[in-house]
Amino acid sequence: MRQTQLFIRTKKDAPKDEVSRNAQLLIRAGFIHKEMAGVYSFLPLGLRTLNKIIQVIREEMNAVGGQEVLLASLQDKEPWEKTDRWDDEKVGVWFKTKLKNGTDLGLAVTHEEPMTRMMTQHISSYRDLPALTYHFQTKFRNETRAKSGIMRMREFLMKDLYSFARTQEEHDTLYASLKEAYKKVFKRVGLGEVTYPTFASGGMFSKYSEEFQTVSDAGEDIIYVDEASGQALNTEVLNDEVLNDLGLKRENLVEKKSIEVGNIFSLGTKFSSPLGLTYKNEKGESLPVIMGSYGIGPARVMGTIVEILSDENGLVWPESVAPFRVHLLSLNADEKAEEIYTALSGAGIEVLYDDRDMSAGEKFTESDLLGIPYRVVVGKRSLVSGKAEVKKRTENESQEIAFDDLISFFK
Amino acid sequence: MRQTQLFIRTKKDAPKDEVSRNAQLLIRAGFIHKEMAGVYSFLPLGLRTLNKIIQVIREEMNAVGGQEVLLASLQDKEPWEKTDRWDDEKVGVWFKTKLKNGTDLGLAVTHEEPMTRMMTQHISSYRDLPALTYHFQTKFRNETRAKSGIMRMREFLMKDLYSFARTQEEHDTLYASLKEAYKKVFKRVGLGEVTYPTFASGGMFSKYSEEFQTVSDAGEDIIYVDEASGQALNTEVLNDEVLNDLGLKRENLVEKKSIEVGNIFSLGTKFSSPLGLTYKNEKGESLPVIMGSYGIGPARVMGTIVEILSDENGLVWPESVAPFRVHLLSLNADEKAEEIYTALSGAGIEVLYDDRDMSAGEKFTESDLLGIPYRVVVGKRSLVSGKAEVKKRTENESQEIAFDDLISFFK
Repeated sequence: MRQTQLFIRTKKDAPKDEVSRNAQLLIRAGFIHKEMAGVYSFLPLGLRTLNKIIQVIREEMNAVGGQEVLLASLQDKEPWEKTDRWDDEKVGVWFKTKLKNGTDLGLAVTHEEPMTRMMTQHISSYRDLPALTYHFQTKFRNETRAKSGIMRMREFLMKDLYSFARTQEEHDTLYASLKEAYKKVFKRVGLGEVTYPTFASGGMFSKYSEEFQTVSDAGEDIIYVDEASGQALNTEVLNDEVLNDLGLKRENLVEKKSIEVGNIFSLGTKFSSPLGLTYKNEKGESLPVIMGSYGIGPARVMGTIVEILSDENGLVWPESVAPFRVHLLSLNADEKAEEIYTALSGAGIEVLYDDRDMSAGEKFTESDLLGIPYRVVVGKRSLVSGKAEVKKRTENESQEIAFDDLISFFK
Repeated sequence: MRQTQLFIRTKKDAPKDEVSRNAQLLIRAGFIHKEMAGVYSFLPLGLRTLNKIIQVIREEMNAVGGQEVLLASLQDKEPWEKTDRWDDEKVGVWFKTKLKNGTDLGLAVTHEEPMTRMMTQHISSYRDLPALTYHFQTKFRNETRAKSGIMRMREFLMKDLYSFARTQEEHDTLYASLKEAYKKVFKRVGLGEVTYPTFASGGMFSKYSEEFQTVSDAGEDIIYVDEASGQALNTEVLNDEVLNDLGLKRENLVEKKSIEVGNIFSLGTKFSSPLGLTYKNEKGESLPVIMGSYGIGPARVMGTIVEILSDENGLVWPESVAPFRVHLLSLNADEKAEEIYTALSGAGIEVLYDDRDMSAGEKFTESDLLGIPYRVVVGKRSLVSGKAEVKKRTENESQEIAFDDLISFFK
């Protein structure tokens, strides 16, 4: 993409009302736009990164047999009343609205209820199970505080997957495969080394659950990490019984601030029973389906990457989720830069090409702010040497690469 | 994809409360699920088709320079008050909700206002124009009647593109390029021959606009078509002045029922003026940006394809939007069918493989219902002849293709 065609303007200063580092940097770099507190829009570079995170998650969900669907956001109250989650006293973050005839509707806070109800139309026999369904769909949560940028939005895309099993044993196998898939997701997006599976309370769903917590000072959570085993636990479950079950010793735990980037729940029959999701086993007996739910918010992952990896000069994207792989800067050498842009793009390498008429200093500063993994500079000196200056965003030293070797360098 | 892993169940009968043909067939075929009147979820096959339509639209928007973004659905009233569209008396289909502190929010009925406001952060000079931004984002419309299946939903994805130009002349060029892009979209998704650019009233926006109307008895609109020129006009503008302007004669017009599958509007400065979207020209003068807006609802396109192309046996998908290109049926020849499934999939051909243990009759009936363009049958006879029976969904006659020639047949 040519920057002369990209409509965004970067900013020197962050908006004064924005306290989170992720939103400050993403707004300055023109990745997102703030609509109001807790509500952000994604601009071209931000959407590209968000979509790359979505695609990583999609691939890992498909790899364990997930089937992608798209459930609606507008919710009728019927299934939520059956599970006792319609009342605002029970679920405090509902946004609600009304049809013209006065019928109450909700905006999905999550999708256990409609997903379970939908599956009653398709599952009836043991032959229909197991099944894994997931979608990327907007959730709406009427948060009182919304000061964490794109890590806690009032409207946000979530990947939520639901597992449907015949037996607890079958559920445990699905759950374990999803847990592994989650580890792969966080590893692929560059958060693997600082993200811990974390034993936690099950909330409304079950006695226990597991969270994936990324260590960061920007986090709203506190976890206790046993660094030897890589296991962590949440404050809520820091008691002798749990420590004993997990084989952990209190004195080995280190307290850390963290961001919850994913969570997985065993739901048992908490949703299938009230909503009538049953199957007939080989003997013709009707049994409730054993369920699990597994969530990741792609924008929270994106905000977390910004919190963890960015530096004093701006954003730093891992190659797996960067909006482009290469940032090509022309410094008064447009003819050669055009040629390189065409060649690299033609070879399938994603290039953002700064073809604007601006000073070298401005281009360098903005390139650091955008955080694309590789910067390739073509200037007057290059035309003499036949070499471009290639620098990784994470390194200070650049190297000279002959024009003819650029494609193979990036392949 | 293997059908043993696909969780959907097809149905012999349509739901009794569903009056539209598109929803009846799509529910029976397991492409969609009805949540409530006017609200549908997309199941794996339906989502694949919806995504193919989205991708066709995306490619054509990118081809004319569109930049993809993603604006929020939750709307604060400020920009809508400035254009006088917040009041329910002015826009009758708002869904509204509230933050916990009592602040009113709307659920986007469209995005002219937030898109224009967002662009004020990025456009200030003639050098920043022209620009084309678009997104695929959910719209919420509180429709009184919702009886047309996925053609008129209370919650639906829309592609809306906005053009920003310096002058009326520049706007006219952008508008013309978008009009051509729209023709390409409808041609690619199989509706080209029955879809007419239709002169219409501009509604709240401008004196005139253009709709793309697809002729169908399921339509809610009436258009008048001049078949010689391929030009149509809507009832609202059937008057001597317009006929004269377009060079049409009343006696040549044929009345037809039709479905509005897209619309394009010249907005002038109706949004840029109240929202302060201006640019400085070469002389340093501040001028309002000239805008246009261009909408297509991918699900309405999908519903229209069903209304136009399906037959008495079920759905019929054009290859460009079919969930899979090939439906492979094994009739007690699983070993050979597996081999073909692996070979075709490996060659990049999208195959739905019916590997279930069911009668030939049931498999054939369901294959017709799903409407995948090519049916490939491998049965006992195939094992003797070394040939599969290949039939197009739109033809009655099948042909025999040697196993070894299948890949080249579909390449």
